[in-house]
Amino acid sequence: MSQEKPQGVGRRRLLFGGAAAGLGAVAAAGAQWAGNSSSSEPDLVRTGLDEGGANGAQTVPFYGRHQAGIATEPQTHASFVALDLGTDVSRDRIRSWLRLLSDDAAALTQGQPALADTEAELAVRPARLSVTFGFGPGLVKAVAPHLAPPWLAPLPGFGIDALQERWNGGDLLLQICADDPLTVAHAQRMLLKDSRAFAAVRWIQSGFRRAYGSEQTGTTMRNLFGQVDGSANPVPGTAEFDRVVWGDAEIPAWLDGGTSMVIRRIAMNLDTWDELDRHGREESVGRTLANGAPLTGSAEHDAPDFEAVTALGFPVIPDYSHMRRARPDNPRQRILRRSYNYDDAPEPGGPVSNAGQVFVSFQADVSAQFLPIQERLDKLDLLNEWTTPIGSAVFAVPPGAREGGFVGEALFG
Amino acid sequence: MSQEKPQGVGRRRLLFGGAAAGLGAVAAAGAQWAGNSSSSEPDLVRTGLDEGGANGAQTVPFYGRHQAGIATEPQTHASFVALDLGTDVSRDRIRSWLRLLSDDAAALTQGQPALADTEAELAVRPARLSVTFGFGPGLVKAVAPHLAPPWLAPLPGFGIDALQERWNGGDLLLQICADDPLTVAHAQRMLLKDSRAFAAVRWIQSGFRRAYGSEQTGTTMRNLFGQVDGSANPVPGTAEFDRVVWGDAEIPAWLDGGTSMVIRRIAMNLDTWDELDRHGREESVGRTLANGAPLTGSAEHDAPDFEAVTALGFPVIPDYSHMRRARPDNPRQRILRRSYNYDDAPEPGGPVSNAGQVFVSFQADVSAQFLPIQERLDKLDLLNEWTTPIGSAVFAVPPGAREGGFVGEALFG
Ligand code: HEM
Ligand code: HEM
Repeated sequence: MSQEKPQGVGRRRLLFGGAAAGLGAVAAAGAQWAGNSSSSEPDLVRTGLDEGGANGAQTVPFYGRHQAGIATEPQTHASFVALDLGTDVSRDRIRSWLRLLSDDAAALTQGQPALADTEAELAVRPARLSVTFGFGPGLVKAVAPHLAPPWLAPLPGFGIDALQERWNGGDLLLQICADDPLTVAHAQRMLLKDSRAFAAVRWIQSGFRRAYGSEQTGTTMRNLFGQVDGSANPVPGTAEFDRVVWGDAEIPAWLDGGTSMVIRRIAMNLDTWDELDRHGREESVGRTLANGAPLTGSAEHDAPDFEAVTALGFPVIPDYSHMRRARPDNPRQRILRRSYNYDDAPEPGGPVSNAGQVFVSFQADVSAQFLPIQERLDKLDLLNEWTTPIGSAVFAVPPGAREGGFVGEALFG
Repeated sequence: MSQEKPQGVGRRRLLFGGAAAGLGAVAAAGAQWAGNSSSSEPDLVRTGLDEGGANGAQTVPFYGRHQAGIATEPQTHASFVALDLGTDVSRDRIRSWLRLLSDDAAALTQGQPALADTEAELAVRPARLSVTFGFGPGLVKAVAPHLAPPWLAPLPGFGIDALQERWNGGDLLLQICADDPLTVAHAQRMLLKDSRAFAAVRWIQSGFRRAYGSEQTGTTMRNLFGQVDGSANPVPGTAEFDRVVWGDAEIPAWLDGGTSMVIRRIAMNLDTWDELDRHGREESVGRTLANGAPLTGSAEHDAPDFEAVTALGFPVIPDYSHMRRARPDNPRQRILRRSYNYDDAPEPGGPVSNAGQVFVSFQADVSAQFLPIQERLDKLDLLNEWTTPIGSAVFAVPPGAREGGFVGEALFG
């Protein structure tokens, strides 16, 4: 592309050698940050609580009984990368691939460069990076078909669905989350480099929540409809959370400490949503927009009263509201939602508003927990007026790796 | 889409009424934040410096002699929205549109909902939101053709260009920046709603830098090649900055206090870049990767020594390096770069890596300042091996609005 090719500088002279150099360089870069705690440019000093860049230094452990990125308080940014195995990639090579990915994910999440990191300086701000692996039906089939849990298959089709093949399925899923978008971009790039020889990208979806430090910690996220979204989630650290997410019965051994993940790309029609008045919006979910309280309560975590009726005798929380429909009578039917907003640029020829939610749920058993909810919502849910599922995928989420091991090791027996 | 339409809940019953309700609701939401400074969910408490959400409360003034978003320290996220005027939109209606946009931008940047804000709760975390208006050739022509500065036209074509019409031009440009991605999404949506009756979206590009608080304040950004990018920029608050950006001579009255903006979408080929060794990468720009120091120095802001030679007699900073070529001998040829990284999902049928830089520069005069640099880089610049401009646009950036006025008012005479 350059107009005059500079003499002597061809591809040959500039050949690969990044890995070793990268490792040395990052030590230098790290030292620079550590030793220099105030800005050298007075014009650029910002008054905030975070001049030292402390957010960027935070890490989430990679190794452990469970994978990170599930009970982890949701980070600001997420990228969901679905990969398809190349043809004839052997069981052994899949093992090598998973080891490579695990080693690099372990390093990157701790603020260390990947093994062959060519942009090592981009690795130094982990910003709570987590990488969560999900195995699609194809991968489990290629490694140990007899160990596939019965629910590891595409969801049945629903009446509300308008699925596009380009957002469905995938053999391996990497959920890459961090509070810093550059950290996510770098980790994604390194993990895709690791994957080149083994798999091809099927789809990538990215999403966001409020920035770290923009809102109080512990505040439930808001989606692009302006709703408080996630209130009824089980709370990490409770027995209920463990039961819902990690399960308590009949778990195949290789998934002990693991869970399942459903990803649905759900388009949200912001234009027709905007035609609704505030009352209609609140009825559609059964909660207020101001703070997410049930329409029968005043605070977000008040228990909803589904018996309460208006002066005219109608339920205060309508029967067709999303919350009423999604809430199970059977306590087994609970899920952990960890969704992200997306607001992508319009695609050529597509509508201007290209927004919605990368709906993500974790549950020990897709069939017993997720499916009955989705079936109920498919039959009746006022929110369906403004939402359309356009992509769908199911993954088995192995337990966390032990140090020296890799994610999914037990699947190899 | 719902399978059983709930009785009595049609579009009619749920009709529009968001504006007034929205304003009341946001006061309530604000009070909730203000009065509640600790998390009610102990399991979710994060140890960080920003539990109070102070970052989200920060504001940048909208009114003033200059528009915000130029001397403002770059926020984490940016969305660049280019709009094309509808056919037969009169001068008077353009004025109404600009007033509407200015009023809403003024409100949103201060953490207030837009006039017809339907998601008022999303407006409460301004997170240093700025909205910067740029006028393309078409808009100036429609309002006051005789007042168009001579440089307000598409750039000449360059040999390195591979422009795609879908990323070029635009009649009005809105640069929406904030440290919180949800704030950007909401502001963008509100400003697009304001624009519906007047204009159509031509393109939207979004980009990112390190998260606020992830890195020390005042640190120069890194691009996706891992390079420290922006070191040689003029520093806000200096006479040099004012001269470069706001200009010192022959400014048309309506642009006094304003500037110009060049946006180039530049694809960066991360795959071939990765084949380069570290030495080659550093030579391509003339600076180190570790901390951005010139190859003849040790700290980022050391002055480069272009005379220094290696033992073999070659310049330490090669003649074909990006820095050598970009640095002017003529001090008039300087610009302020305020670029953002992009890393979009692959498009159907496109390559997997869809990454690069939304290159953004501000300068008082495109022809006298930007063009000579771009012409030199077009002729020779090692970096051209890995970068390809795929979009290009030029805008006149009016001065800031006075309170009660609107951006671009002086163009209407
Ligand atoms: C774009 C699509 C969706 C939006 C905007 C949305 C929004 C919401 C909102 C605002 C709430 C109330 C607050 C809360 O507890 O989080 C909620 C609750 C819930 N949603 Fe959704 N949701 C969507 C799709 C789904 C899907 C696909 C499922 C599962 C199939 C689901 C399952 C649930 C459940 C289980 C609850 C909690 C119900 C309870 O026990 O109170 N949602 N959703
Ligand atoms: C993807 C494309 C580009 C990349 C990755 C890139 C990267 C860099 C880097 C790493 C530097 C050195 C540090 C600094 O001073 O910022 C630099 C300097 C510079 N670049 Fe670029 N650049 C790109 C495109 C451009 C374009 C299109 C222009 C203008 C036409 C430009 C003008 C400059 C200028 C004026 C300097 C400062 C030179 C000096 O006085 O030291 N760059 N660029």
